[in-house]
Amino acid sequence: MAPIYFDNLAGTPLLPAVQEAMSGYLAQHWGNPSSQHQVGDVANAALEKAREQVAALIGAEPREIVFCSGGTESINHAIKGVAWAQAKKGRHIITSNIEHNAVLRTLRALKLQDWRVTSLDVDQHGLLDPAKVAEAITDQTVLITVMLANNEIGTLEPVAEIAQIAAARKIPMHTDAVAAVGVMPVEVKDLGVSLLSLAANQFHGPAGAGALYVKRGTPLWPLVDGGVQEHNKRAGSQNMVGIVGLGQAAELALAEMDSRVARTRALKDFVTQGLQARVPHVTINGHPELCLPHLVSVSVGYIEGESMMIMLDEEGICVATRSACAAGALQASHVLLSIGLDFAVAQGTLVLSFSHLNTKQEAQVFLDKLPPIVERLRSMSPLWKG
Amino acid sequence: MAPIYFDNLAGTPLLPAVQEAMSGYLAQHWGNPSSQHQVGDVANAALEKAREQVAALIGAEPREIVFCSGGTESINHAIKGVAWAQAKKGRHIITSNIEHNAVLRTLRALKLQDWRVTSLDVDQHGLLDPAKVAEAITDQTVLITVMLANNEIGTLEPVAEIAQIAAARKIPMHTDAVAAVGVMPVEVKDLGVSLLSLAANQFHGPAGAGALYVKRGTPLWPLVDGGVQEHNKRAGSQNMVGIVGLGQAAELALAEMDSRVARTRALKDFVTQGLQARVPHVTINGHPELCLPHLVSVSVGYIEGESMMIMLDEEGICVATRSACAAGALQASHVLLSIGLDFAVAQGTLVLSFSHLNTKQEAQVFLDKLPPIVERLRSMSPLWKG
Repeated sequence: MAPIYFDNLAGTPLLPAVQEAMSGYLAQHWGNPSSQHQVGDVANAALEKAREQVAALIGAEPREIVFCSGGTESINHAIKGVAWAQAKKGRHIITSNIEHNAVLRTLRALKLQDWRVTSLDVDQHGLLDPAKVAEAITDQTVLITVMLANNEIGTLEPVAEIAQIAAARKIPMHTDAVAAVGVMPVEVKDLGVSLLSLAANQFHGPAGAGALYVKRGTPLWPLVDGGVQEHNKRAGSQNMVGIVGLGQAAELALAEMDSRVARTRALKDFVTQGLQARVPHVTINGHPELCLPHLVSVSVGYIEGESMMIMLDEEGICVATRSACAAGALQASHVLLSIGLDFAVAQGTLVLSFSHLNTKQEAQVFLDKLPPIVERLRSMSPLWKG
Repeated sequence: MAPIYFDNLAGTPLLPAVQEAMSGYLAQHWGNPSSQHQVGDVANAALEKAREQVAALIGAEPREIVFCSGGTESINHAIKGVAWAQAKKGRHIITSNIEHNAVLRTLRALKLQDWRVTSLDVDQHGLLDPAKVAEAITDQTVLITVMLANNEIGTLEPVAEIAQIAAARKIPMHTDAVAAVGVMPVEVKDLGVSLLSLAANQFHGPAGAGALYVKRGTPLWPLVDGGVQEHNKRAGSQNMVGIVGLGQAAELALAEMDSRVARTRALKDFVTQGLQARVPHVTINGHPELCLPHLVSVSVGYIEGESMMIMLDEEGICVATRSACAAGALQASHVLLSIGLDFAVAQGTLVLSFSHLNTKQEAQVFLDKLPPIVERLRSMSPLWKG
């Protein structure tokens, strides 16, 4: 039996149309879009078609799209690229406490090279107060980077408000929108940011393909130097098979956005209510309204998330305890600690992420399977007092 | 009719077995190898299989292979990563004048951050004298980076000798082996380097997939920070479809190495002799013996390479004038100027790169089609005096 897959933040199944686009491309084409002959021309046409498809998904101009190897590279490029380009102007960056490791560790690397980082607290729902950003700005501030949607608790940050503050001070603003683009409507013009990161594997495209939106005039060095690809912003022969898949996935996500959001939101509500009704001592994390439509973060008191995940996997249900990028790291989630959960509760957390391919029946199976697992684990837990 | 494709340095046709591996993978799997459930486990097994296949191709341990988005990223990672990791020890790097733009522009970016670079001259065949490297070393030298095979003229550099000099001074050495790996036998242990860059699109794997070999104990920061993927050396969800293709292509290249080399070398000899016999005033560039088996660089006096390329393309023959990564850049090739060609001769250069899929018949078509094109272009050239 195919597993029930509720870990779409770690990667989404490729849709048949995306598979066909990729398989069809790789069966016929191998050209380098930079080559100035007929084999290159075919590749270049496919590249520019995908650029239009991705631009349309976020309301950008094709020329503002820089293809890269995924969300993490896109984030690294935005943050390091803007920091390097403005090193002589200032060395101060503002962010939040609940960013993805791609942001946190990029900033840590910059700190080792004498950049200064202000990392702002969020409230118990994971929300950042824009007024705190305004207060943190100094003459040395050259970048503000705040995520659009948190990938562990789903909270949507007030990026548009923060971008207005940034624009008033002429500071470039980047948003890590990886968990949001393709999952809910995202328009760069509404957000008003200078840079935005997205990844195909969040909306039924392949892993290893992503993009950085770069508004014209944004000061930015390359992360990857070399050839003149991507308007001199990202060197290296493009991952054409991946980019073709990204483009096709973007086109489908845009076309089906409303129905996908309705479907995942219904699953989210169904599972959230089911958990609260069937499992005692659970906490649903994140903001109750300002949140991703497809993510449920639930902390189950007195037991370990990892144990639940393993036992669910044995029942054929795939879930996560946190970001796949941090799997194997032994610390508790920095996101959950930042919203005030104590260490034990944070360790008892499951993250479910749905796609429109999931069904209510699958959700029902999960709601049936989880309570006995929780009961069994609690019966063995030294923390549980029945 | 399918074009005759003599531009394999810009990218190679995917072999049927590579296509099948990739299409088969993407039809069934989407998992994230970092996920700790069954869908992730399948992806992780595919990832580690590919790592073994790539390691075998260059005689490395699987753990020494770091997957990335291609040759350019691999080079950026090696150079910037070693420089950053040793910034407190010294800020001096040694290289040659004829490196790929991925090396040159990476070093240019470091220069803007106060690194110092010594770029050494080569001889008229493009060979770097190891004694010059020894002389250039200072107490501040933290990296030597010299390419294994030049991608415009094919000359093989004495990397093993230079690596011995580097090792004696305890300086990490990197080699850009992108144009060589998969095309001719390359063994990291014979070379003795600390870091080596390779790319799948040079040996009938996909563009967008490459690797960096990192010998244990080499000081290296990530280029892309974030998750714990690739033993904490390269963050971001892996491009699984591309990596599966890279692995399959590596296995085939290793198995078929001798016959592929014999085949491309025969084509190279046939075309070289044919050019010299049929076209007056041609120069074959690069070292006559220490050279890639599959590359011919030919300067045709008194005309422009770009015009020849376009007219050959109209005849269904794809060739290059230089690295695809530099296509569109208007300057003459820095490699050809470095070996002493004057500007006009450099501008009249074609680069042909063969694969074992090419045939002698195709080479014959090229040798028949080129002379009338040269004659026609010369008849229009102000430089030509008949």
